[in-house]
Amino acid sequence: MKEDQIIEFLRKRFPHFIGDDAAFLKSFKNKNSILTKDLLIEDVHFRKRYFKASELAHKALHINLSDLAAMGAKPEFVLLGLSIPKNSDLYIKDFLKSFCTLCKKNKIQLIGGDTTKSESAFFISVTAFGSLKRGHSPKFRHLSKNSDILYVAGSLGYAHIGLELLERNQKGFSFFKRAFKKPKAKVLEGLWLSQRKEVTAMMDLSDGLYVDLLKMCKASHLSAKINLNFLKRKNAQFKEASKALNLNPLEVMLMGGEDYGLLFSVQKKYSKEIEEKFFSHFKYKIKKIGEMQNGKGLEWIQDGIKKNLNFKLKHFFHFDE
Amino acid sequence: MKEDQIIEFLRKRFPHFIGDDAAFLKSFKNKNSILTKDLLIEDVHFRKRYFKASELAHKALHINLSDLAAMGAKPEFVLLGLSIPKNSDLYIKDFLKSFCTLCKKNKIQLIGGDTTKSESAFFISVTAFGSLKRGHSPKFRHLSKNSDILYVAGSLGYAHIGLELLERNQKGFSFFKRAFKKPKAKVLEGLWLSQRKEVTAMMDLSDGLYVDLLKMCKASHLSAKINLNFLKRKNAQFKEASKALNLNPLEVMLMGGEDYGLLFSVQKKYSKEIEEKFFSHFKYKIKKIGEMQNGKGLEWIQDGIKKNLNFKLKHFFHFDE
Repeated sequence: MKEDQIIEFLRKRFPHFIGDDAAFLKSFKNKNSILTKDLLIEDVHFRKRYFKASELAHKALHINLSDLAAMGAKPEFVLLGLSIPKNSDLYIKDFLKSFCTLCKKNKIQLIGGDTTKSESAFFISVTAFGSLKRGHSPKFRHLSKNSDILYVAGSLGYAHIGLELLERNQKGFSFFKRAFKKPKAKVLEGLWLSQRKEVTAMMDLSDGLYVDLLKMCKASHLSAKINLNFLKRKNAQFKEASKALNLNPLEVMLMGGEDYGLLFSVQKKYSKEIEEKFFSHFKYKIKKIGEMQNGKGLEWIQDGIKKNLNFKLKHFFHFDE
Repeated sequence: MKEDQIIEFLRKRFPHFIGDDAAFLKSFKNKNSILTKDLLIEDVHFRKRYFKASELAHKALHINLSDLAAMGAKPEFVLLGLSIPKNSDLYIKDFLKSFCTLCKKNKIQLIGGDTTKSESAFFISVTAFGSLKRGHSPKFRHLSKNSDILYVAGSLGYAHIGLELLERNQKGFSFFKRAFKKPKAKVLEGLWLSQRKEVTAMMDLSDGLYVDLLKMCKASHLSAKINLNFLKRKNAQFKEASKALNLNPLEVMLMGGEDYGLLFSVQKKYSKEIEEKFFSHFKYKIKKIGEMQNGKGLEWIQDGIKKNLNFKLKHFFHFDE
């Protein structure tokens, strides 16, 4: 597909897709907005070998929506940048079709972007733009307070198990492969949580709980105490898959990236209430993992006793810089 | 440089650089805004062999500013996405330094982005966000009218000459090489022109006059009549360089891409006035090239006679898809 064919293809599906140099955004009547950008690179974040074009389109969109979710923003627009290797017409066409369908499903306007050829990898750059409710401000990650209770919405380590299975060509456990290939951004949860005063700080889990929580601690000038008993994994499949891969389940839960759940802190006295309200709204439970405290870095507690953890797993296996 | 080092580097220079999942934009008091995204890929758009990191940073920023200029928007924010190959620490550091300096110089806030490693080429994806004056709407390219006069602000073909010289390792003519490597977005001109009622449509020249003008014609459902006598190149250096490269100067002017000038249409009766006002404001002349007419496609006139042109030069030499 040539650039003009791609533009035609997109314009048919999105009448407001730009034919101009840039996209025109109507003012949002004094609402604040959120802008994010995530890259997906072939042979760094994905391989065509095990990613269907439709799965890749899903992931490219959702990793950006996850950033908006963490900021409590409603997705409005996306820009799509593609650098396309030779002989990939069919794959690209499937990718574009799926991407458009997913945007429409999520009521997002695709308003522009850029396409070029690539002499090497397939390179995807999505920029997403979301709006905040009038008068609302995001739950920035630096706003966590001492003694706030820490929660996770979503699974921990599933995506990493999926990635390892795919990289090692192992059969079965398709549930985890799906968690890696088609993470679902917690857009509604993000919107809901961002509107609770009791929620103090929020971010999405892309680099793994360990790394992301450290970021929240640093930003808030606090430490976090994690209760490892809360992280005891009851899912038999998860244990089985970890064993098959010769991985430590706890390590995977703490260090595995790309789950795209939400990590957030809640004022202690309202924490039970948030747990209950969340459950009654979304029909699944958020996981309490520990609490914020004065100090620096992370502290691990097991059966009431401090524990030293020494991880071999890299925080995100792609980034071996 | 690891991702966190890059983030630290940028945060030191831009205090508002996000530590959060996405960038927070304060509402612009009912002003409309413009969003654009352009990719720059190693060995497609540039080679490190002849691009200093500082030149590449300049180009990565200015090709995006040029899109904002064409829409009459004041640059406000950028997001920077980088996919970085191994062993390029020094180059990347220089790139980042220059990019930050250029943003500051242009009063643009760098508010976020994404960095990953690359297994192959160096990929740059910049997203730029600009604001429009309250109540102002862009001079969309579909708004050109029959009998409007067509103008170009900026040079034609210089960047293509520069690119060919660099690709062929030819010495000298540094002026043209610079035009290719460090195009200067016509931000002030774009702002000025977009505020004139007499200006009807505008776009930037990235793919070459021939291709870009065809886009304006298509969007406006009109044809354009180009007077080749207006394009007689008086610059001796340009002729000399074209000759050295065995290229037809007229073909280069019409088909060469990446000049990043502005192409715009003006109501006939005000065209002289715009010419004069532009000159008195910017101290250089805009080039009249022809006029819009009813019909389809482009028409070429030389010495009052219709001429058929048959170009061998590809509209943009990189894109040989």
